[in-house]
Amino acid sequence: MSKWIRFRRQDSQIVEFGKVSEGVEFENQQVNVCTGSLFNGAEPTDEVLDIQGLEILNPCWPGKMIGLWKNVRAAAEKQGLSIPDEPLYFLKSSNCFLPHLGEIRRPEYYDGRIIYEGELGVVIGKVCKDVSEADAADFIFGYTCVNDVTALSLIDKDPTFAQWCRAKSMDTFGAFGPSITTDINPEQLQVQTYYQGKLRQDYAISDLIFSPYQIVSLLSKDMTLYPGDLIACGTGSGVLPIKPGSTVAVHIDGLDPLSNTMAVV
Amino acid sequence: MSKWIRFRRQDSQIVEFGKVSEGVEFENQQVNVCTGSLFNGAEPTDEVLDIQGLEILNPCWPGKMIGLWKNVRAAAEKQGLSIPDEPLYFLKSSNCFLPHLGEIRRPEYYDGRIIYEGELGVVIGKVCKDVSEADAADFIFGYTCVNDVTALSLIDKDPTFAQWCRAKSMDTFGAFGPSITTDINPEQLQVQTYYQGKLRQDYAISDLIFSPYQIVSLLSKDMTLYPGDLIACGTGSGVLPIKPGSTVAVHIDGLDPLSNTMAVV
Repeated sequence: MSKWIRFRRQDSQIVEFGKVSEGVEFENQQVNVCTGSLFNGAEPTDEVLDIQGLEILNPCWPGKMIGLWKNVRAAAEKQGLSIPDEPLYFLKSSNCFLPHLGEIRRPEYYDGRIIYEGELGVVIGKVCKDVSEADAADFIFGYTCVNDVTALSLIDKDPTFAQWCRAKSMDTFGAFGPSITTDINPEQLQVQTYYQGKLRQDYAISDLIFSPYQIVSLLSKDMTLYPGDLIACGTGSGVLPIKPGSTVAVHIDGLDPLSNTMAVV
Repeated sequence: MSKWIRFRRQDSQIVEFGKVSEGVEFENQQVNVCTGSLFNGAEPTDEVLDIQGLEILNPCWPGKMIGLWKNVRAAAEKQGLSIPDEPLYFLKSSNCFLPHLGEIRRPEYYDGRIIYEGELGVVIGKVCKDVSEADAADFIFGYTCVNDVTALSLIDKDPTFAQWCRAKSMDTFGAFGPSITTDINPEQLQVQTYYQGKLRQDYAISDLIFSPYQIVSLLSKDMTLYPGDLIACGTGSGVLPIKPGSTVAVHIDGLDPLSNTMAVV
């Protein structure tokens, strides 16, 4: 198991990446600066930096970010929704990517509900097309925490067209990070979302309708997946509107937790 | 007015760009090789190449490709659809980008209808957030032809979730190019799509429900648009399924035409 971040040093514009040391609190760990490529041969240097003091970026820059709808069994049943035959997904555009500790912002004109959705994020590691479920793990680089922020009132605003992409792709609505964890078994993970410090979402990845491996396999029949592509596996019960100044933290065992606050403006 | 392409020389992996000479037939024109950046200061070199013999790439690599639904008035009226209050849009992921002369491919498992949609593509030139309709033109770099290929039978396959992104984002389903034309008035353009040499779509950009400037302005209230982002303005009447071996050509006055054939496999 290893953990990877992208970062900038203070007053630097250069994006770097590295391997995070083992430790309890993300902010108190150190990073071994690497050269080369995260997905194609990282070379550790001799340099080790304290994470404290670095600007933590999204741990990768996905060529596409895909989000699943209605993929947690208990949440679907609670809402009286049917169980889908295939993964149902939308895209989130890159303008929405938000790193750990980045501020979620409300678009000026929009006064409807903005909700959090704590999710497991799957990061692709190799070019991937038409792979089987059994082979899918070989194409996954690792896992990260996702907060799939959503302008809920927009989705059904127009009765003729569900506006998923719009509601999901506003600037700052795609929070993920802080690190990517490799070599863990996703089936045993539990997603816990804290809103203002209170546990509000608590669901098992084993309760997904389509498991991470099934998702990668099925999506790869539609489209080529590339290193760095990110798939958010869908959310469980317990989503709530985010109020200005409030903090959402997504915790998944073995992964560094993701925390974001909504701007007060 | 100028026209820009991206290309590779024979047996080269290097992506280059340049300015296309004035001329009638795209394939018989020449390109003045440039250095620097297409959106931030192109520097012409002394080198001029024949387009014939080059591998023509997509003229830019959009950070996001946005497509509008139901944005041509006559087509909406003909189908008995309501006129939307706001642009209704989906995203097309980068795996689907296909250059001029690239082959459209049918996904192995899918045997439903695959249709063409000839459209005007707007290429963003400057970072753009919350701009007015009056200022929108300043943020547009130019225009290109788009064939927004769609696996039509997938959109309504699941009754609970319209699968726009999936139906629109399969590999090779986002054809655009061959060049980007700057400094033209989009309001006067006419989109004509030829299927197997027969004119099948013929509609005026003046018949768009939301004009290119309105689209850029309204979308920029949702999300930051970046140089190279591509917006397909929606299609008119006359879409048809594409059969294997058949060719779709999108013609827009003043723009170089885009031609793509469906693979026979």
